Amino acid sequence: MENKNDNLKTLRHSAEHILTQAMESLYPKILKAMGPATEDGFYFDVDLNGVEISEKDFSKIEKEMQKIIKENLPITRKEVSVEEAKKLFKDNPYKQEWLGEIEAKSEKPTVYWTGNDFVDLCEGPHVKSTGEIKAFKLLSIAGAYWHGDEKNKMLSRIYGTAFPTQKELDEYLKKLEEIKMNDHRKLGSELNLFIFAEEVGRGLPLFTEKGTTIIRELENFVIKEEIKRGYKHVNTPDLAKIKLYEISGHYPYYKNTMYPVMEVDDDKLVLRPMTCPHHFMLYKSQIRSYKDLPLRIAEIGKLYRYEKSGELTGLIRLRGFCLADSHIFVNEKGALEEIKNVIDLIDYAVGVLGFEKGKDYFYRLSLGNADNKEKYFQDPKNWKKGESVLRQVLNEINAPYYEAKDEAAFYGPKIDIQMKNILGKEETAFTVQYDLCLPKRFELKFINEKGKEEQPVVIHRSSIGAIERTLAFLIEKYAGAFPVWLSPVQVQIIPISEKHFDYAKKLERDFNLANIRVQSDLRNETMQAKIRDAQIQKIPYMVIAGDRELKEKTISVRFRDGRNTNGIRFEDFIEKVKKTINDKSLKL
Amino acid sequence: MENKNDNLKTLRHSAEHILTQAMESLYPKILKAMGPATEDGFYFDVDLNGVEISEKDFSKIEKEMQKIIKENLPITRKEVSVEEAKKLFKDNPYKQEWLGEIEAKSEKPTVYWTGNDFVDLCEGPHVKSTGEIKAFKLLSIAGAYWHGDEKNKMLSRIYGTAFPTQKELDEYLKKLEEIKMNDHRKLGSELNLFIFAEEVGRGLPLFTEKGTTIIRELENFVIKEEIKRGYKHVNTPDLAKIKLYEISGHYPYYKNTMYPVMEVDDDKLVLRPMTCPHHFMLYKSQIRSYKDLPLRIAEIGKLYRYEKSGELTGLIRLRGFCLADSHIFVNEKGALEEIKNVIDLIDYAVGVLGFEKGKDYFYRLSLGNADNKEKYFQDPKNWKKGESVLRQVLNEINAPYYEAKDEAAFYGPKIDIQMKNILGKEETAFTVQYDLCLPKRFELKFINEKGKEEQPVVIHRSSIGAIERTLAFLIEKYAGAFPVWLSPVQVQIIPISEKHFDYAKKLERDFNLANIRVQSDLRNETMQAKIRDAQIQKIPYMVIAGDRELKEKTISVRFRDGRNTNGIRFEDFIEKVKKTINDKSLKL
Repeated sequence: MENKNDNLKTLRHSAEHILTQAMESLYPKILKAMGPATEDGFYFDVDLNGVEISEKDFSKIEKEMQKIIKENLPITRKEVSVEEAKKLFKDNPYKQEWLGEIEAKSEKPTVYWTGNDFVDLCEGPHVKSTGEIKAFKLLSIAGAYWHGDEKNKMLSRIYGTAFPTQKELDEYLKKLEEIKMNDHRKLGSELNLFIFAEEVGRGLPLFTEKGTTIIRELENFVIKEEIKRGYKHVNTPDLAKIKLYEISGHYPYYKNTMYPVMEVDDDKLVLRPMTCPHHFMLYKSQIRSYKDLPLRIAEIGKLYRYEKSGELTGLIRLRGFCLADSHIFVNEKGALEEIKNVIDLIDYAVGVLGFEKGKDYFYRLSLGNADNKEKYFQDPKNWKKGESVLRQVLNEINAPYYEAKDEAAFYGPKIDIQMKNILGKEETAFTVQYDLCLPKRFELKFINEKGKEEQPVVIHRSSIGAIERTLAFLIEKYAGAFPVWLSPVQVQIIPISEKHFDYAKKLERDFNLANIRVQSDLRNETMQAKIRDAQIQKIPYMVIAGDRELKEKTISVRFRDGRNTNGIRFEDFIEKVKKTINDKSLKL
Repeated sequence: MENKNDNLKTLRHSAEHILTQAMESLYPKILKAMGPATEDGFYFDVDLNGVEISEKDFSKIEKEMQKIIKENLPITRKEVSVEEAKKLFKDNPYKQEWLGEIEAKSEKPTVYWTGNDFVDLCEGPHVKSTGEIKAFKLLSIAGAYWHGDEKNKMLSRIYGTAFPTQKELDEYLKKLEEIKMNDHRKLGSELNLFIFAEEVGRGLPLFTEKGTTIIRELENFVIKEEIKRGYKHVNTPDLAKIKLYEISGHYPYYKNTMYPVMEVDDDKLVLRPMTCPHHFMLYKSQIRSYKDLPLRIAEIGKLYRYEKSGELTGLIRLRGFCLADSHIFVNEKGALEEIKNVIDLIDYAVGVLGFEKGKDYFYRLSLGNADNKEKYFQDPKNWKKGESVLRQVLNEINAPYYEAKDEAAFYGPKIDIQMKNILGKEETAFTVQYDLCLPKRFELKFINEKGKEEQPVVIHRSSIGAIERTLAFLIEKYAGAFPVWLSPVQVQIIPISEKHFDYAKKLERDFNLANIRVQSDLRNETMQAKIRDAQIQKIPYMVIAGDRELKEKTISVRFRDGRNTNGIRFEDFIEKVKKTINDKSLKL
């Protein structure tokens, strides 16, 4: 496996050299900067130096690359002195900078020649000759800072990929096309789920009626399920005095992503980046006894984090979002059991949404790092205890997981539930954290069995995570064809002609009475056009109302997946749909 | 009526003079400032000048007042020159200030003598002699700025009241006691519905599980009802660029109550004081046709207004609250009908909550003022049109209403639904506004029947108002004994002894399955103590589980209002409670 992967990287890196050579030959003014292979292909960072290049020029560049491949030029490695290298790249400040670094470390540079006309500073390895590249494709162009630092010059980055065979390339391109189609940003706009408005601000989505319907269903689902499992749902303000985050110790760690402080009268207020201190205030508003524990305070809490522009991604990363959040106050002995309960809730809730453990999501045990004294609260004994409790949970429930160092919260280790988005990027979707630190900072107490004051452990957890992010995952997973209970419109009534409008309206009323989300298409369009539009909107059920249905008091139903049923009793269909909704079934 | 009221005011004003005289006699150092009769009694503002007085001293002061009344001293009016008056009050800077003002207006001061030892600067009128005061009472002491201006010195204000007979006074004091008992702040704390935390900030309530349950029921109720009536519920961010409020024109009018602008990167963001511009952005995100109108965009929108500390009152006036808000886009012809629909919705929703039109709430037509060019958007023709539409609505629906000048929104006239809180203070609870201005500012358009662009009218409205404020009204109206559907705990199970705990738990599970909010009291207390505690919590139904119930598989129920039913079938009771909840019945 490892070897195959290395071969692919070598192939792609060589394709990148061919791209560079082709571009130098077409646009002699450009200055090559750098270009590695990646997991999916390769990219090439270049200072275009005034030359204008867009995706329209890709076919021309690809032709030039084909020419180089056809010549089957040998690619050869050579060790040179820094001095020689500096001469070779004398007009290129980027290479000079690399060479300066190599010199400082007293290393010896290597260069790779392709034929006799092209050379680049490179550690390799590469394929033996250009003819080995059988299948490649340029994909896109974007801006990128030199060394990824926004203080440096903005260069251009050209993305491409290469595969051992044309067949593998074609398969990859097809998958890429699907991914683009299912991107939640594209679908969100096509299905009219949400918009962004320049006048409102970046990273602040406005949800339409349809998007809001899904969010409401998700929220109602999680609130109901959590209450059933003994959670106490509360409602606390989205802002607080900055002092609260100084007590909690969040401020130094989160300062960079917190909104600016609002100073007014004598108050210094700030939009909250998390709910913990608010829930602690509620906990502290009464004297708590061991009989009250575990006390599970939960909230669909609005949180505000000012993410950098570059990090904003559709609904995945926002500047304001709703977290299905909770803080569980429990004595140390009870923590293990309680964490198991949390994992069980997450598995259940995420399962209802159709995500599969081990396939769509998996567990990561995120550990601290005793050496990183700046990042973590110092309490080695308790860190060890927390990490061992979490590891024990994962072992006892037989969860597939891996461990990751230096990924904990500042106040303790955590279990992260990782999901991959459609672009293959891993994101933390949900989290269970073992808090060693904040109960002490907030002086949280309960009266134990012996009548003495004792400090509880706090478990921070999200169940279905940030609602907006979960919505993004759902849009992409289902390509907009949501399970019926989540579909913004569950039934579309399609009268065949104007004389069936009254029957359509009667059916609409009946669906409404059954709490089924319905709309009638009363436009003067053909049935075919109406079906096509309902299909585009991915509405699960299309109810056709024509002469036969009117006469027989039945309906004909076309399913989103293409199936049809004719002449079924209306009451039977209503019952069927109601059951599908109530069961939160993933099937139609 | 008018006359009787005047007599009462005269009586109370004289009682206030007797209070002043009594205090001067007890505490010669004090400086009297002013003291009028009010609707409920009188108050006396005084510079205590170092003397310390608290409510503990009231009985002593009342005794001194009784002495003056017993002496039946004559109260006599006298016109004096400013010069004479200045001499009379030579050591009192407050009276000197009054006299300066009288002098500036070239008026002649009048003074009132009580006997020969007490005199005050006063316009009167007064009763003939102190013996006419038959029944009075001092009530409370508080701080008050001289002339109500916080730049001036803080004085002390002593509140009291007087009635023609002791019987009337006793009745009033009894009512006052009730009011205090039902104050939503007191009940909110006793029933554990919400808290305020100094660390979070003033005017920012934290709702417990119980308060949150009521809020959730209210929100679910209004969302469901509005969707049924064709509203489209959306979800938009609680903040936006300040530019949005500059376009809308809110900024100059609302600047004083808006939170400070948060400057970060190139953005200037602000917490929203209203949702209108967000809804306009959603409206503008698509081309709208006359077929789409009326388009009713609704949201339970979080709003932020930085009220002055002195104006914060429990849940009535907060610094952040949730408004059941909507903006209806309609063509001019359709506005009248649509406003009627809105009033119908408000009457319905508020009626379900148990408020009665004409008793608990009434309508106010809030008009603009053409002379007040600073406060209102200038467009005389459209103002007239808007005012006449609103007046027509109120006449056609036979609503009891009155007109109030200079109470409109800056962008148009409105119908305000006014509620009285328990202290008798009138508050605008809900509002329907006819907007002449913002559609123009935001260039809102729709394509009319002729295929031409036309500007819609916008109706701004709230249905059940600010959820927190409505909750405050509800707490006070029901003294915490909420209708069953709103009760945080609907059923309390009370096992008579430990051997009935299992039966209690079984019953609890069954109530849970029926979606009835239930809890079991498993403490080692007597049944009587448990009933008393459930009664204090105002839980509608107490289910007693003892030997007989266990044996007969029945239950005995004690109602919050004191009624009892024994040995009824569990299934029957569940059905009864479910029906009471589903009907949103006001009766048990």
